[in-house]
Amino acid sequence: MKVGILGTGMVGATLGSKLVRLGHEVKMGSRSANNEKAVQWAKENGARASFGTFADAAAFGEIVFNCTAGTVSLAALTLAGASNLKQKVLVDVANPLDFPKGMPPTLSVCNSDSLGEQIQRAFPSVKVVKALNTMNCAVMVDPALIPGEHDAFVCGNDKAAKAEVVEILRSFGWKSIIDLGDITAARGTEMVLPIWLRLLSIYQNARFNFKIVK
Amino acid sequence: MKVGILGTGMVGATLGSKLVRLGHEVKMGSRSANNEKAVQWAKENGARASFGTFADAAAFGEIVFNCTAGTVSLAALTLAGASNLKQKVLVDVANPLDFPKGMPPTLSVCNSDSLGEQIQRAFPSVKVVKALNTMNCAVMVDPALIPGEHDAFVCGNDKAAKAEVVEILRSFGWKSIIDLGDITAARGTEMVLPIWLRLLSIYQNARFNFKIVK
Repeated sequence: MKVGILGTGMVGATLGSKLVRLGHEVKMGSRSANNEKAVQWAKENGARASFGTFADAAAFGEIVFNCTAGTVSLAALTLAGASNLKQKVLVDVANPLDFPKGMPPTLSVCNSDSLGEQIQRAFPSVKVVKALNTMNCAVMVDPALIPGEHDAFVCGNDKAAKAEVVEILRSFGWKSIIDLGDITAARGTEMVLPIWLRLLSIYQNARFNFKIVK
Repeated sequence: MKVGILGTGMVGATLGSKLVRLGHEVKMGSRSANNEKAVQWAKENGARASFGTFADAAAFGEIVFNCTAGTVSLAALTLAGASNLKQKVLVDVANPLDFPKGMPPTLSVCNSDSLGEQIQRAFPSVKVVKALNTMNCAVMVDPALIPGEHDAFVCGNDKAAKAEVVEILRSFGWKSIIDLGDITAARGTEMVLPIWLRLLSIYQNARFNFKIVK
């Protein structure tokens, strides 16, 4: 499959590399056509890895991952272009973390709205699926890093799009994937970030994840 | 031990009854001295159970549980009286759930503040410990209702107060209790309510809880 990755940070690079290893063709997009980190990432990931602008990556992907910082995601997606994203599945991995006073961050949107919903409203023809925003990126692509069962969450308005994302998550090794319903559930998954960040500061280690025990 | 319970709802009644069964003396407080639910609860719970005003319950308790609705907790605690609460451990079980548009609720405070912090600021001599606000009340007092390991969280500024609350939680059957640090971590535990409520609406059953898997 052809995949567009928006963002050149740790999350984008980790997801992009995993997708390349699984046999997909991946184009990493950024604000500029020759972002240093994207060039380096493509060099390290072989023939199936390429780079370009946000618009290049969005046009290239049959499915697109939003791995930009949450506070600039809407701007990045605008540069990616509604016409390049149209009708596609957009996996929104971002969290709207804002650092007005340093650590810990706050959320730039929460409670009665979420980044996932903002993106869905701004790009109504795109099939937004919020996923993988509740764990560290190493865990995202290799859940077996943490022993035992633990959960990934998905939510979004389009069932077929969620099924497609669930299939990708299974190819990453995810066994327990909880469908939380429509995109308004993104409020819930984004709002776990404060406790996640607190646990990170206590453990000094990002190898942990949530599990819902019943 | 003498325990004051503020609030006559399901949470207060369930916690109060458990504490009575464990041998404690419990006074349930409410806005009026003769709240019907408090009178009925005391009748059902025998000689160690009594009722009165918020101030009566606060004065009675060596430790006090805030089981009022989060949006009225500060008002209830003001009625309970700073002098009755002074230097005591206050276990804040409440969540600031607000229902301006019905279900699902939003949080009346979150992100850069929390109910736990608001209470601590309003009553600086009280030792506020946020605990038990991340699961259903039946699970609070009987964690074995859910098979396997799952977690309770505590946070607060006073270590001895947290240790006392941890001991009470252990007497309820809690085995895994995560200390999240100071009271600002209440932001984290209160902000898990949106995903908790979404899971409740999916499962149609409150017998589930969070576990942090490492």
